[in-house]
Amino acid sequence: MPKTYTLSQIANELGLSYQGDDITITRVNTLEEAISTELSFLANPKYTAQLSQTKAGAVIIRKEHAHEVKNAIICEEPYYAFAQCMALFSEPEGTFTGVSPFASIDPSAEIGENCTIYPYVYIGANVKLGDNCKLFPGTYIGENCLIGEDCTMYPNSVLMSRTVLGDNCTIQPGAILGTDGYGFVRTPHGIHKIPQIGKVEIGEKVEIGANAAIDRAALSATRVGDGTCIDNLVQIGHNVTIGKDCFIISQVGIAGSATIGDNCTLAGQAGIAGHLNIGNNVTIGPQAGVARDIEANKIVSGSPTTDYSTYMRISALMPKLPDLFKRMSKIEKAFAALDLLESQEKKEK
Amino acid sequence: MPKTYTLSQIANELGLSYQGDDITITRVNTLEEAISTELSFLANPKYTAQLSQTKAGAVIIRKEHAHEVKNAIICEEPYYAFAQCMALFSEPEGTFTGVSPFASIDPSAEIGENCTIYPYVYIGANVKLGDNCKLFPGTYIGENCLIGEDCTMYPNSVLMSRTVLGDNCTIQPGAILGTDGYGFVRTPHGIHKIPQIGKVEIGEKVEIGANAAIDRAALSATRVGDGTCIDNLVQIGHNVTIGKDCFIISQVGIAGSATIGDNCTLAGQAGIAGHLNIGNNVTIGPQAGVARDIEANKIVSGSPTTDYSTYMRISALMPKLPDLFKRMSKIEKAFAALDLLESQEKKEK
Amino acid sequence: MPKTYTLSQIANELGLSYQGDDITITRVNTLEEAISTELSFLANPKYTAQLSQTKAGAVIIRKEHAHEVKNAIICEEPYYAFAQCMALFSEPEGTFTGVSPFASIDPSAEIGENCTIYPYVYIGANVKLGDNCKLFPGTYIGENCLIGEDCTMYPNSVLMSRTVLGDNCTIQPGAILGTDGYGFVRTPHGIHKIPQIGKVEIGEKVEIGANAAIDRAALSATRVGDGTCIDNLVQIGHNVTIGKDCFIISQVGIAGSATIGDNCTLAGQAGIAGHLNIGNNVTIGPQAGVARDIEANKIVSGSPTTDYSTYMRISALMPKLPDLFKRMSKIEKAFAALDLLESQEKKEK
Repeated sequence: MPKTYTLSQIANELGLSYQGDDITITRVNTLEEAISTELSFLANPKYTAQLSQTKAGAVIIRKEHAHEVKNAIICEEPYYAFAQCMALFSEPEGTFTGVSPFASIDPSAEIGENCTIYPYVYIGANVKLGDNCKLFPGTYIGENCLIGEDCTMYPNSVLMSRTVLGDNCTIQPGAILGTDGYGFVRTPHGIHKIPQIGKVEIGEKVEIGANAAIDRAALSATRVGDGTCIDNLVQIGHNVTIGKDCFIISQVGIAGSATIGDNCTLAGQAGIAGHLNIGNNVTIGPQAGVARDIEANKIVSGSPTTDYSTYMRISALMPKLPDLFKRMSKIEKAFAALDLLESQEKKEK
Repeated sequence: MPKTYTLSQIANELGLSYQGDDITITRVNTLEEAISTELSFLANPKYTAQLSQTKAGAVIIRKEHAHEVKNAIICEEPYYAFAQCMALFSEPEGTFTGVSPFASIDPSAEIGENCTIYPYVYIGANVKLGDNCKLFPGTYIGENCLIGEDCTMYPNSVLMSRTVLGDNCTIQPGAILGTDGYGFVRTPHGIHKIPQIGKVEIGEKVEIGANAAIDRAALSATRVGDGTCIDNLVQIGHNVTIGKDCFIISQVGIAGSATIGDNCTLAGQAGIAGHLNIGNNVTIGPQAGVARDIEANKIVSGSPTTDYSTYMRISALMPKLPDLFKRMSKIEKAFAALDLLESQEKKEK
Repeated sequence: MPKTYTLSQIANELGLSYQGDDITITRVNTLEEAISTELSFLANPKYTAQLSQTKAGAVIIRKEHAHEVKNAIICEEPYYAFAQCMALFSEPEGTFTGVSPFASIDPSAEIGENCTIYPYVYIGANVKLGDNCKLFPGTYIGENCLIGEDCTMYPNSVLMSRTVLGDNCTIQPGAILGTDGYGFVRTPHGIHKIPQIGKVEIGEKVEIGANAAIDRAALSATRVGDGTCIDNLVQIGHNVTIGKDCFIISQVGIAGSATIGDNCTLAGQAGIAGHLNIGNNVTIGPQAGVARDIEANKIVSGSPTTDYSTYMRISALMPKLPDLFKRMSKIEKAFAALDLLESQEKKEK
């Protein structure tokens, strides 16, 4: 059953004031799509014109625009307040509770209180699982894993042995943590697999996207810092270290032993070569190819990367490259006609 | 047991005529690899020379080449006819039938007639599953999903809650639909997760490739239109809308809120930035990086994209870029020798 | 319980000599992180300075450096010897043994001796599984698969029907082999799926990475040669043939019907277009886009690819491209000022 709140309840919950009728809100929605029982928001002033069109029952809005609507919640950061409202209306995934008899839990595993363990979950030897964890069907937790409190593993996600998860982590469906790093060498004796005897260590409040892969270290650990959010289909190689509060967007690949600082953003499909150091607060553009270290606070783009403004200039000029070749030929011809180049060449000899 | 047909049976099935002996056909194969009991085809005239070499027992062929072989099925579109023959010889995946007692089906779920539900399938509360669906081991269907008729979910594929599938959809192994969109914002209060309370809506006759990921919307829905075919390891962000009959090739990434028209083709590893509009009938080249809207009927390539012919010219010129720099230096030297540049600079001052 | 060895036992196991005290070794580690009960190694002479700092109990080292440490194992190839030591200290994944009653095994399947089959494994009709195989939870093996000896399938990996695995293969978690190739054609009758009636054939000692996808052939087989190591999230299209001992790094995509020779290295995120031939011993750079055949023994990079040295020169020049445009404008202006271009244009008319 969907939850409903009155406007005053929502304002109260957020510690904000409201104006207009204390109507019942059934859902949150965009200004464009909201109906009369729904709550919307205006954050970006460029959408102000939509206020006159919206059918939303109420709007979260800044003080200066409040007079343009009847029912409203007033605040300084409408987008943030709206995100909080989305949380109010969001339903937790999954209705199953308790520990299924169709799960396989090694007798040596320690399971915290109030955990939800669906059917077809496998928990190996010596695993420690904190309180309030939720393990969906098909999740696998290898031996000696340590999992904090309030973690969720969605369907078919995998922690290979020795993986460590901090509190409040979310592992989206199909994500794989702790699989063997790519450790192979060509030797005079043929290709040789280097056993990957390290592990993966994930901090607190980390989210790992669907079908992402994080390799365990050869030795020591592959590490992801607190608060970092990793999107779907991202590849993180062995012995990589990622700092805190990073955004690693979909399909990024980070090769082995690279180090990423805190507060970095790696846009979609970017690739980072192995053994590089990326400083704090670095932003790396989409599809960028990073082949050398990047200092803190830089914004880079392109493959191989340059600083952002150079990248933008190059991008704007590329379509003019064919013309540049023509311009060059024209100049050369003009020179040739004047014997300028030839006399110059003679001089050089 | 493999199926066999006589040549006349096959011709009959396809509504076409045949010539030569009514031999028994055990399989379909290429001209190069076919043996005397196998049926092959000639579609591309450049392979006509293979007709004299092939050991195929019969060939699907256009009228004008029919005299070059003994046993043949005659038609205007040999490739299409051959594809129909492949269907005749293809075996359905999986031999299990019925509903396994080792599946977990919430009592509130409504299961259509004639469904196949393997062991280790999990079906959540209030799911509606149409007739003739086939759910392989390890599939997970979250609560409130609506699934049409004749859908197949291959092993370990996942529909998170509220996902809607039209009739005749095929979800390849490991594909994840309806996982949380990447909704995080850096705020003065730290990184904040924006609950993703929307869903995924898939039209009819849609195929989703192995280990692909389609995020649920923040609000409203992420949508894929009828007939669209999505390849392996594709990423589709939240609130994306994809039209009908599109080809989205492997490892493509489409960022949040982008809109793709009908009949588009996105080649492998291409990336589409968020909030863009791609018109109908657009073709986007492999590894392309789309950073702005694309009008209908365009063919674009490159990262960032340009129109196709410009891309091809740029690509051809890139290896000559080092030489262009040298040519420029030579011209500059010639100028310098003649004091031309300097006199020009003086003039400008 | 972790394994321990004395230094002499390790030297013995590797057929090498040692010097110093016969201490007990509990683990292997880097020079930087090793403690007094751990064994480390010096392979790259540039780290020689670390020898004076390391707390390692013993070091694997070349003869010429042996005098710089007390306890050592002496050899010609320290890195290779160290890899062998890692194997000595590595624990096999998983502690479960035997065949779980919670696995589903079709009665017609033939299971070799000494196999480990976890709960929630599904084995279809007519599967042949060799001796000493290990199938982790959630693995699916479709009907008619043939699997050699000593193969491991990690959690939630999938072999669709007819897939063939040679001996000693390792399938990492979530990898999908034998899913339908992307066979769709736009026809006057709408989009038509071409049934994929071929299979996947994997040689011996092949490793397939986490969440990788290998499509079955339309006809015939998609093939991966002996010894080839495929990393996470790689896509291999239908009818691709990959030779022996190749390194295919993470997120590479290989389109349908491409052929890759022996001993090739494809770096991360590279893409290979369909129907191409890549010779033996070819190295393809990261994010490269291969649009034409590559001869044996070449090193190529870029998108589209050029030979490596050209790629490096282009990469170095790209940031100077904006300046090149300026230089061109300056020259053109100088010309214009001198009426040189105009007089030249008059001549041309």
